[in-house]
Amino acid sequence: MDERITEHARTLVDWSARVERGDDVVVSVGAGAHDLAVAVCAELGARGANVVTTYASGELDRAYLRAHDGEFAASDAERALYEESDVVLRLGGPLNTTAMADVPGETQAARARAHQAAREARLDTRWVSTVHPTRALAQQAGMSFEEYRDFAYDAILRDWESLAAEMARLKAVLDDGSEVRLVTERDVQPSTDLTMSIDGRVAVNSAASVAYDSHNLPSGEVFTAPYATEGEAFFDVPMTLQGRRVRDVWLSFEAGEVVDFSAGTNEDVLADLLDTDPGARRLGELGIGMNRGIDRFTDNVLFDEKMGDTVHLAVGRAYESNFPPGHEDEANDSAVHVDMITDVSSESTIAVDGEVIQRNGRFRWEDGFEAA
Amino acid sequence: MDERITEHARTLVDWSARVERGDDVVVSVGAGAHDLAVAVCAELGARGANVVTTYASGELDRAYLRAHDGEFAASDAERALYEESDVVLRLGGPLNTTAMADVPGETQAARARAHQAAREARLDTRWVSTVHPTRALAQQAGMSFEEYRDFAYDAILRDWESLAAEMARLKAVLDDGSEVRLVTERDVQPSTDLTMSIDGRVAVNSAASVAYDSHNLPSGEVFTAPYATEGEAFFDVPMTLQGRRVRDVWLSFEAGEVVDFSAGTNEDVLADLLDTDPGARRLGELGIGMNRGIDRFTDNVLFDEKMGDTVHLAVGRAYESNFPPGHEDEANDSAVHVDMITDVSSESTIAVDGEVIQRNGRFRWEDGFEAA
Repeated sequence: MDERITEHARTLVDWSARVERGDDVVVSVGAGAHDLAVAVCAELGARGANVVTTYASGELDRAYLRAHDGEFAASDAERALYEESDVVLRLGGPLNTTAMADVPGETQAARARAHQAAREARLDTRWVSTVHPTRALAQQAGMSFEEYRDFAYDAILRDWESLAAEMARLKAVLDDGSEVRLVTERDVQPSTDLTMSIDGRVAVNSAASVAYDSHNLPSGEVFTAPYATEGEAFFDVPMTLQGRRVRDVWLSFEAGEVVDFSAGTNEDVLADLLDTDPGARRLGELGIGMNRGIDRFTDNVLFDEKMGDTVHLAVGRAYESNFPPGHEDEANDSAVHVDMITDVSSESTIAVDGEVIQRNGRFRWEDGFEAA
Repeated sequence: MDERITEHARTLVDWSARVERGDDVVVSVGAGAHDLAVAVCAELGARGANVVTTYASGELDRAYLRAHDGEFAASDAERALYEESDVVLRLGGPLNTTAMADVPGETQAARARAHQAAREARLDTRWVSTVHPTRALAQQAGMSFEEYRDFAYDAILRDWESLAAEMARLKAVLDDGSEVRLVTERDVQPSTDLTMSIDGRVAVNSAASVAYDSHNLPSGEVFTAPYATEGEAFFDVPMTLQGRRVRDVWLSFEAGEVVDFSAGTNEDVLADLLDTDPGARRLGELGIGMNRGIDRFTDNVLFDEKMGDTVHLAVGRAYESNFPPGHEDEANDSAVHVDMITDVSSESTIAVDGEVIQRNGRFRWEDGFEAA
């Protein structure tokens, strides 16, 4: 077995989920994630944890959902499984990233609503989502399988302790600051000049560990929940919404709301998204990607939004972890949360309260930062 | 998809498990049983049942068990999952039937003891075990994959309603009878002449459906719990015990207990088995195979013991379903239950209270039965 699979499993079990003896651990095995599951089971055995393995397959879901009449009921068994679990490890690894392409979105949403209690019980555990590189993911990224594996392990097998320390510096700046301004000026595309308030909000140091309230491996971003957004933003990284490719999204904000927008392709999908509910026109997240093991976009948000030298803004739901205790109800509410990414590696600045903290991808505490 | 997979799924869901709308169903998917799982999920969706899919892999088990220090704890999550389930469908389908060959038996037994509450909760559901034909099973049977699939579906896709009616006739004979005598006389092997009491016992019509207290698909046997066994029996069908092939087992009984024995190969494994505990020297089961879709032995007891024109005797634990209510504590108790099979298609008779009910594989109610 590739030694990196064993390293991945160790990172997941120890750094990310902090598994201890006696923990009841659910391991959700994607249809193409068998090899990672073997390595994870060995680590869990060595730590004296209990294991229940579940099976996650788009093909099974598709068959079930297409045959169902749509009147879904809550699953007591699924809820009970998660209620009695301490840790849930989701090992993604699809054999076909479009296996659910012919299942109507309403059907998926109806099942999700019926299973909300089980979902909440799962989110109450020390859950972590990761991904085992498969040929389907390589294909989605436009890479060979070997190349994609190198890419994925570069992203996953970081020195997380050291990255967490660096991200703590950015978190301190954002926690102390009141206003963020993001500026990008390039000749070949619309400019970005966006001002957001972050006063009273708490930044999360997303260091790929439940100890940091971070539930993705890889991670590597610091994010907060902005409001009172003013200005314009252009997103040069393509995204896939409802199975369709949306490029060159441009949003214009006034008093925290999107008042104008455009997209280079599939603009109607963007329009549908923004019309979901009132919260879909407000920002739920400002995230600053700091994982430099991720050096290109692969059409997979788990990786894309963590890429070093990028910023992402999400329209829709905000995370409660960005609010001080007792203020969680101030979080922007929406049925959606869609990340949009922009490259800030060149001709870009991020400023907090008027002071530039990043220019062209370099933070002010790094070698190569240009003071002005 | 092979239409037989869909038929298999329908038989499992409707005939075997009697799934109804709103049932919470756990589907345990063997590592090689993905295609059957897709078909089963479609049937469960169409019936409006809830589904949780678990993953069963010898490779995951092996990795976990070999890494563990052996101090196993009960799994609350696994127990809760089964306690809240109505139905458990186990779709076997190994990629390697010897995947656990290097896991010590004591380790497996220790884990099984720690997980007893979960096991009991599972056995309290409408559980059914079946098998999806894989290349590994074909190899174990010494067949090509295509040939093995034909074999497996011949066994699984029976007219179960009609077979259940025929087996009901045999059950009635055994329920009314007091003594069974099994005789086989062949020139080339030791003779069998065994007399067993079945007075006060209840025969089970194992018709591959929970409605018949039968939990295997395929099934097709009528079995009871004999006692006061006297005489000798020879088992001409090889068996695999603890990963070793045991052939030509011969047992001699007095007053219900094995008093002498031999085997043509690996006799020490047979000796170990009989020394497990006092109950391991007494019979727990007399079964009469009636599934004529199974026409050869494939080194898989799920199929072998159901084969038409065979009889099997198990040393060890008896099933409570063979005892009238209130008499379950009379069941032979043992940590083991090992089936041994003998061919009765020629030079053989089965008699109940002195009356021959089967001769050379033909029952007395069938065409071709020779009265004497």
